[in-house]
Amino acid sequence: MINFREVYIIVEKKNKHIVVIATLDTKSEEAKYLKDLISERGHNPLVINGGIFGHSTFTPDINHGEVAEAAGRTIKEIQSFKGEGEAISAMALGVANIMQNLLSEGKVDGIIAIGGSMGTSLGLKVMQQLPISIPKIMLSSIAFTPMITPESVSIDQVMMQSVGDLWGLNRITKMALQRAAGAICGMVEEQKKEDAGEKPVIAITTLGVHNYADYCKPLLLGKGYEPVVFHSVGTNACEKLIRQGYINGLLDLSIHELVNFVCSGSIKGGEEKITAACEQGIPQVIAPGALDFFTWAGTRETLLQNFRHRNVHMHNPLVYLVQTTPEEKKEIARLLLERVNKTNGPTVFLVPLQGFSRLDREGMPFYDPAAGKEFAGVLKQGSTNRLVEAVEIDAHINDAVFAEKAAELLLEKMS
Amino acid sequence: MINFREVYIIVEKKNKHIVVIATLDTKSEEAKYLKDLISERGHNPLVINGGIFGHSTFTPDINHGEVAEAAGRTIKEIQSFKGEGEAISAMALGVANIMQNLLSEGKVDGIIAIGGSMGTSLGLKVMQQLPISIPKIMLSSIAFTPMITPESVSIDQVMMQSVGDLWGLNRITKMALQRAAGAICGMVEEQKKEDAGEKPVIAITTLGVHNYADYCKPLLLGKGYEPVVFHSVGTNACEKLIRQGYINGLLDLSIHELVNFVCSGSIKGGEEKITAACEQGIPQVIAPGALDFFTWAGTRETLLQNFRHRNVHMHNPLVYLVQTTPEEKKEIARLLLERVNKTNGPTVFLVPLQGFSRLDREGMPFYDPAAGKEFAGVLKQGSTNRLVEAVEIDAHINDAVFAEKAAELLLEKMS
Repeated sequence: MINFREVYIIVEKKNKHIVVIATLDTKSEEAKYLKDLISERGHNPLVINGGIFGHSTFTPDINHGEVAEAAGRTIKEIQSFKGEGEAISAMALGVANIMQNLLSEGKVDGIIAIGGSMGTSLGLKVMQQLPISIPKIMLSSIAFTPMITPESVSIDQVMMQSVGDLWGLNRITKMALQRAAGAICGMVEEQKKEDAGEKPVIAITTLGVHNYADYCKPLLLGKGYEPVVFHSVGTNACEKLIRQGYINGLLDLSIHELVNFVCSGSIKGGEEKITAACEQGIPQVIAPGALDFFTWAGTRETLLQNFRHRNVHMHNPLVYLVQTTPEEKKEIARLLLERVNKTNGPTVFLVPLQGFSRLDREGMPFYDPAAGKEFAGVLKQGSTNRLVEAVEIDAHINDAVFAEKAAELLLEKMS
Repeated sequence: MINFREVYIIVEKKNKHIVVIATLDTKSEEAKYLKDLISERGHNPLVINGGIFGHSTFTPDINHGEVAEAAGRTIKEIQSFKGEGEAISAMALGVANIMQNLLSEGKVDGIIAIGGSMGTSLGLKVMQQLPISIPKIMLSSIAFTPMITPESVSIDQVMMQSVGDLWGLNRITKMALQRAAGAICGMVEEQKKEDAGEKPVIAITTLGVHNYADYCKPLLLGKGYEPVVFHSVGTNACEKLIRQGYINGLLDLSIHELVNFVCSGSIKGGEEKITAACEQGIPQVIAPGALDFFTWAGTRETLLQNFRHRNVHMHNPLVYLVQTTPEEKKEIARLLLERVNKTNGPTVFLVPLQGFSRLDREGMPFYDPAAGKEFAGVLKQGSTNRLVEAVEIDAHINDAVFAEKAAELLLEKMS
């Protein structure tokens, strides 16, 4: 029995544009197999050859000569580069430029790349330059190895470990390619259109040591806003979405990336922290959530070398939280000011005087109210931008009254 | 116009069993949304609650009490554990046991888990215990952070970075959940059945510094075997597939994981290397490919502290290759022997006397024929198992004659 409503939905879910990126000098058999699976499913694959040398077993839609030209080079020039790293970077630039054209023509519903170490570096680089509206998959034989760093992936990356090396078709590589095709097709098919007239978005940054997001949520929903929470684990997802125009207001209540940046901790993203909202000029309330510690991902042995005199809390055997010193806290305040003084939007510092995390509270290991006061002092005295003000509140960051005040201040600035 | 052949294919691709794992104490809204998307696509979601506490907004198919029981506990006991790490490990054991039952009943075509740090640790643990025949996706807010180590993922893991934290439904989390649903549905839909009567599989381990796989390929294909290549990047994919019964013979021509194990390099997997084929008793030829260096993933500064007197080759600014010492080479030979002496299958050591990688060749930085000879000497004298023999060949590991000899020796043992 055919259900005609279902058939209608299925037809609507076809004919999506899916870009396939591969280095066809070594991966043409695999790319052809992937392309055919995408076609069989009713979509339109477009293959771009990011490979430096020749020998593809089929003709791609965009060949490596065109990629080189899009990078302002000839393929002969790139082939003559001494370092393979330099050559693949030039190819990545070319593919990225081509992607921008395809995007503006509405010809990208999803993107998939396959590769070993060269193809993976190319694929990830290209995907990092695409907005989150485009689903992206990297099928890689080095997906989860020390070669892939958190900074090298997109904020919405899908990464698929290839069990066998992508070296010819066999039952193991075919299985991986079938799944990769299924995943990218399924992703573009399921992607719903965003509703017009949606509520303005307020981003909230947080860590597990905070619970203010739960207090803020009903307040923001009640006023017609949509809260979106970002985990301060160093992906810079919040900053990237602000730059892509998805965020209307910011409760930046965890500055954990910045703390790690100053203290050389393990969480990345400190370079970008605070800067996006300031550049875009969206209203923001900033509080020093998780100022009291930085994160150290490693064994106790590697930790002790550098920080053996500090207060240390074991989060689990591989992740330690290390207390920041009063001097580091002041340094973080100075860096905060330096960045915020350049803001183009209304900004409030909200400093809770009774502590900045679950561990920084009377009776808890990182409690240090004197250092907190010094931190607040630096902030209060340092603003040179009339858009910035500093407000103190005699509460702990996890108290309901703090969350309510933060939300209230932001809503004032947004109205 | 309806194409009836297409409708037939579509109907065939429905009604797959997809297991959804989430900690419903904090992620029930998100899990419900995901479950509904999977149902709408015509599949059968089965939700397992791995959460320790209560408060789900809907009734899962398998609740946390049943999970606790499957781990030999009560949920009250687990709730009273002091450490959350211990509690989530118990829940992971329970879910893994339930999965084994579902698998044996044929009720798992795919699995998807969602989570923050707790849910991710649970999801990854469960997926690691499933065979590669089951597609697996982890949607995680900590997907690409220092908290996720290469050892914590499956050899066919699909990992999806959640842009926003999984904290309620909003346009950002809905987009992520739609894509996750699409990806897992697409993966189970595209998975083809393995053909009956397929050729026996020969696994080849290699690194970029070798090209023997290209020489072996036509030889093995010509004799009716299917070669599958594994990149020696420490995923232990080859060992795991041997244990799952996918591999009939092994050309273990890169022992890079073992080298890193002995030298404390960055590539993992040395604990398992060599052991799987010995236990399963499949025929194998072992050669010391990439014995001449180990891999160091880190900056030059971290490297120099420990190995400043060594020959070092920069692979790229984040990955260095460090020459092994003659003493380390002998230590690796002893460890190889220790493992191989326990083998249950015919084993040949094939030692190419002119060098073990592209960098270990006359005129190249890691060339050290005296150390290579010592290595071969240890191997030749040390075998105590009558199934093991050592053969020398006066060639470089990248010469065609080496590859041909390796293939020929293995085919002899397999016939």
